[in-house]
Amino acid sequence: MTRILISEVGPRDGLQSIDRVMPLAAKKAWIAAEAAAGVREIEVGSFVPPSLLPQMADTAELVAFARTIAGLNVVALVPNAKGAARAAEAGAHGISIPFSMSETHSIKNVRKDHRAMLAEIAAVAEIAQGAGMHFAVGMSTAFGCTMEGAVPEDRVVRLAEAAVAAGAAELSLSDTAGYADPAQVRRLVRGVRAAVGAERMTTLHLHNTRGLGLANVVAGLEEGITTFDASLGGLGGCPFAPGASGNLVTEDLVLMLNAMGLDTGVDLDKLLAVRAILAEALPGEPLYGFTPDAGPMLDYSERLHA
Amino acid sequence: MTRILISEVGPRDGLQSIDRVMPLAAKKAWIAAEAAAGVREIEVGSFVPPSLLPQMADTAELVAFARTIAGLNVVALVPNAKGAARAAEAGAHGISIPFSMSETHSIKNVRKDHRAMLAEIAAVAEIAQGAGMHFAVGMSTAFGCTMEGAVPEDRVVRLAEAAVAAGAAELSLSDTAGYADPAQVRRLVRGVRAAVGAERMTTLHLHNTRGLGLANVVAGLEEGITTFDASLGGLGGCPFAPGASGNLVTEDLVLMLNAMGLDTGVDLDKLLAVRAILAEALPGEPLYGFTPDAGPMLDYSERLHA
Repeated sequence: MTRILISEVGPRDGLQSIDRVMPLAAKKAWIAAEAAAGVREIEVGSFVPPSLLPQMADTAELVAFARTIAGLNVVALVPNAKGAARAAEAGAHGISIPFSMSETHSIKNVRKDHRAMLAEIAAVAEIAQGAGMHFAVGMSTAFGCTMEGAVPEDRVVRLAEAAVAAGAAELSLSDTAGYADPAQVRRLVRGVRAAVGAERMTTLHLHNTRGLGLANVVAGLEEGITTFDASLGGLGGCPFAPGASGNLVTEDLVLMLNAMGLDTGVDLDKLLAVRAILAEALPGEPLYGFTPDAGPMLDYSERLHA
Repeated sequence: MTRILISEVGPRDGLQSIDRVMPLAAKKAWIAAEAAAGVREIEVGSFVPPSLLPQMADTAELVAFARTIAGLNVVALVPNAKGAARAAEAGAHGISIPFSMSETHSIKNVRKDHRAMLAEIAAVAEIAQGAGMHFAVGMSTAFGCTMEGAVPEDRVVRLAEAAVAAGAAELSLSDTAGYADPAQVRRLVRGVRAAVGAERMTTLHLHNTRGLGLANVVAGLEEGITTFDASLGGLGGCPFAPGASGNLVTEDLVLMLNAMGLDTGVDLDKLLAVRAILAEALPGEPLYGFTPDAGPMLDYSERLHA
């Protein structure tokens, strides 16, 4: 039976996209409840300057808390070497740095061109190695960019090789703009894996901006992808607002994978119950997903892997 | 380049699911505009008694009208031989009859068990043959039933063989309850095709009740399916209401297939413009879809097949 890892990114990707700051206690309750539902990896926050993203100011405390949960892989996003040092100090199991395949997007977002980003990746890699942290590079805008439009696939492959040469232990392909289509997912996963080795490219970070999120997951599965990022309740992204992330909804992803007989280790009922924590801590914040309303199929339990 | 047929079922499946009756002129405008956008097959209505479904009372007039549109394949649903005779009289190119794989659902819906349905199929087949109409059997609840739960796959295969023996020229698998998952789609398509021949099983009718509609399309494509039913604006099905159809949204389906470089022949911009006809004729009726709000990707036109 194929084991699939659901990586919950809501506490980072979801919460950084909304203005309100979720109280630390609620974040802890969320992380604990989702781990108890069987989610084995959570991106708990981002080591960015609190002045830029006050929503992420308590990331070190969250790492420390999440580390106390047995069996949970605790990861954090870092924008640069300074963030990596903070993550190492906090004790994260793993870190990831976003590396935008669109140079326009990269310069606009973090004021670094590809050359400068590769230097930063090398610096982060050194810190990660010293601290024994797993280090992934998130190839953002890999499927296209709202500023540049199409991102040539050979450029993504070339930058994937460069990121690995700079010290990335792993790469993920990220559909920042919600542009990916299933045929493109298959081509690009195949291309990057051929260049850097399948064992270094096991993760997709997909959005649902145009409703193609789960369709792209199916394409990824066909190519052997085994880790999918998702956000509980699709938090932080209105799929209908241009430019919004429209994160893949964890609940729908788990329903689909579990119904397919794949082994996610996640209990859907327990996962659905975690939404109450979000609803209480962020009243009025829209939560997305089809499964929470429609419920699982009547024969859902018969579909689960033995 | 693979050619994919989008079969628009909104004028039948969409309109029969809502209480209001769309005026005949609006239906005609819808059908004409969607054909002008490149849709090559439309299910224009259902030959059920008008006393049961007044929304479908003008199906004969719609068939006659749609027949005047060059290149359009005009199909209608028929519940029985009486409906088939009316369809033949009206001049439909093709008809389909729903045949529920769940006997409970069949008895409850049309008061016929499987044996009685197969007799009806044989009677319809004779009328279709006499009139030169294409005849398809829609294997409804093929992926599970809200009453029976799981529908055994070997039962679907057996009933597919029986339907062909009774005279069906073609079969489609219909996810009436929104229960299908991508692994099941692949298994069931493969199983039915192996039993009755791939050329007789080219169509999927999928719902989006649990958000898996397009994911199931990808699974169908992998198995060689070349026709997909969909409803403009997902009309007639609230994906959040249990029991509602939650039809696949034509706009999102076209965006995905076109972006994948498949040849649907449908112009997305023109298709999106057709929504205005629905919005005007059915004010306040919810229309669904991600693409109408998010718009196509910036590099959409570069993805289209050459």
